[in-house]
Amino acid sequence: MDCSINKLVILGSTGSVGRQTLDIIRAFSSKFKIIGLAGGMNIELLKAQVEEFKPEMMYSMVNPGTEYREKYVSMEQMASHPDVDLVVMAVPGKLGLLPTLAALRSGKTVALASKEVLVMAGEIVLKEAIRCHARLNPIDSEHSAIWQCLKGEQSKPRRILLTASGGPFYYHSLEQLSKVTADEALQHPVWSMGAKISIDSATLMNKGLEAIEAHWLFTVPFENLEILFHPQCIIHSMVEFNDGSIKAQFGYPDMRLPIQYALCYPQRLSNPEIPYFDFSAAPALSFETIDIKRFPCLRLAFEAGRQGRSYPAVLCAAGEMAVELFLSGKIDFTDIACLIEETLQHHQVVNNPDINDILQVDSWAREYVQNIFCSQPRKYGQGSKLPSGG
Amino acid sequence: MDCSINKLVILGSTGSVGRQTLDIIRAFSSKFKIIGLAGGMNIELLKAQVEEFKPEMMYSMVNPGTEYREKYVSMEQMASHPDVDLVVMAVPGKLGLLPTLAALRSGKTVALASKEVLVMAGEIVLKEAIRCHARLNPIDSEHSAIWQCLKGEQSKPRRILLTASGGPFYYHSLEQLSKVTADEALQHPVWSMGAKISIDSATLMNKGLEAIEAHWLFTVPFENLEILFHPQCIIHSMVEFNDGSIKAQFGYPDMRLPIQYALCYPQRLSNPEIPYFDFSAAPALSFETIDIKRFPCLRLAFEAGRQGRSYPAVLCAAGEMAVELFLSGKIDFTDIACLIEETLQHHQVVNNPDINDILQVDSWAREYVQNIFCSQPRKYGQGSKLPSGG
Repeated sequence: MDCSINKLVILGSTGSVGRQTLDIIRAFSSKFKIIGLAGGMNIELLKAQVEEFKPEMMYSMVNPGTEYREKYVSMEQMASHPDVDLVVMAVPGKLGLLPTLAALRSGKTVALASKEVLVMAGEIVLKEAIRCHARLNPIDSEHSAIWQCLKGEQSKPRRILLTASGGPFYYHSLEQLSKVTADEALQHPVWSMGAKISIDSATLMNKGLEAIEAHWLFTVPFENLEILFHPQCIIHSMVEFNDGSIKAQFGYPDMRLPIQYALCYPQRLSNPEIPYFDFSAAPALSFETIDIKRFPCLRLAFEAGRQGRSYPAVLCAAGEMAVELFLSGKIDFTDIACLIEETLQHHQVVNNPDINDILQVDSWAREYVQNIFCSQPRKYGQGSKLPSGG
Repeated sequence: MDCSINKLVILGSTGSVGRQTLDIIRAFSSKFKIIGLAGGMNIELLKAQVEEFKPEMMYSMVNPGTEYREKYVSMEQMASHPDVDLVVMAVPGKLGLLPTLAALRSGKTVALASKEVLVMAGEIVLKEAIRCHARLNPIDSEHSAIWQCLKGEQSKPRRILLTASGGPFYYHSLEQLSKVTADEALQHPVWSMGAKISIDSATLMNKGLEAIEAHWLFTVPFENLEILFHPQCIIHSMVEFNDGSIKAQFGYPDMRLPIQYALCYPQRLSNPEIPYFDFSAAPALSFETIDIKRFPCLRLAFEAGRQGRSYPAVLCAAGEMAVELFLSGKIDFTDIACLIEETLQHHQVVNNPDINDILQVDSWAREYVQNIFCSQPRKYGQGSKLPSGG
């Protein structure tokens, strides 16, 4: 980056990460120039962002009207545009997959917030990044922490310790979990996030997806990935080296820090908007090793990750569908894992999948979840917990 | 280091750091060769080490007898010998000063455990290291932690957070402190160390000396050095960057880890003797900011460090003398700081001191402490706390 201006596009500018990215651009307006913005359903916010940052390109999932016709391009076009240096990838689900590949193939640096990209197609994405000498800068606070701890290290990590807030139901019994409502599950104790990721946090699926991402980003086998319950969310993750030394990265739970790090790497910029950590008011930091068997979604994610091939794509798609069913009140909280597991079990694995295989597997898994939900009303759904004779 | 054998000398091989260094050499005997050993008063242990490692050179503070005549050289000769790659500097007090300079001037890497070297003559030592392209690898667990956290970082630290166990009397009142015996002060809650450093730990002078060392090693001004009370001694120190991100280095309190890191840098070697950290049995990690005014020795060290020039050498020498008087039962625990402060106040500062000035200042300070102790029996000494009319 140095003294030149970094030209970037934000895919997912109206979401939580996108909005916080724009906050950082505002704080360092002399260092960044927005070339393109892509937004989701919130067309009013996207229009306001376009008015403010005046990008050359824009994309919207909702028709933005004729006034933006000249700027209108697809996300892939935007991500691979010759003027662009850096692509912030913050669109949910599989939507980020093709634009990420387009960006990497054009040699862009991708600041990656979309978990599903690496979970669904880690091997494909990493191969493209290496082949095209393009860089993937993680934005997730956990992966940013690991990345920071590995900076300058020649040794491979012996163990990666992903910290987990545990979500709002960490100490709930199975019975309590089955009665959890969508509203309760949306109340994350520490981080303020979107609905899907809040539910994934509550099931700990989020940590499982992060483990799969970490596996690809840092080439660490799953047996060297551990999840630590750390309710204070101050240590964002840790790396242990083979000499026994552990490095950890600390800070308030504030996504702006890892976003800024991914945008400015390898520089670190002082941002007056981000407060420095106050040790005089710091809580004691506690850790508990998590037995992944206790959390079915976490167990399924590790299993799918270990199996590799097309399994993680099924995990992702089935997870998205199951969370949707839960959020719309159609299944119980504990049914989320059951639906994902049943879908994984019935999946016909594709060895060495290409990106089309991945997208087909994604469609299959979504349909499959819908089908088992509709065809087994006694097992899943609102009446599921009534006595069978009732 | 790579695949070649690293040839080293250990100055202070019979002390705690020296003995643990030899443990590491034993664990990696194919990677290191001992060329020289220098020991203190424990001649029997030194002889046993010489028998085991068969170095070409040896030095002893006690006459080792005629059998070693052929190997016998001074510590400076040993440290600058052409066969040597790395010098482990673990002799107490000012003894390490001239051998360190000799090693650096010969372009050797110095693995530095002797605190006093940088405290007494930080500017001189650092200038020589830079001039001669020689490297200083810190061995102290705190400085090793900071060094590890800074690895690969381009940015200067905004703040360095030195963690402190607090020693055995952290919560003692002034009255309780005045009654502390040498035996009590030698019981460090976590680390097992020599007598001088145990007392320095109890007065927190140790942390003050470490702050001065950190100031020189990492070119950080004193206002950016903070001391954090962290009784679990698991986080060995931390670095905060200007973006607000904090990196910490973790591990059991075990000196072998930082010693090994300093010997093997930039490699990290797996040592089966050093246990990996078990998070399932980890205590919660707490922190308290320390007000340096509460601890007179810590305050004096920061003041001497800020004043610079010949003041830190006075601090060191007066501290050594005062601790000796306390250990031999001649003054109270709380007199240690008083004697150091009085000596600092009466010191005629030397601007831009060279190494001879530093050694003269050292002698002056030792004599001065002795004089004020002898000339003020009512103020210092065993009878000091009797009512003046008694």
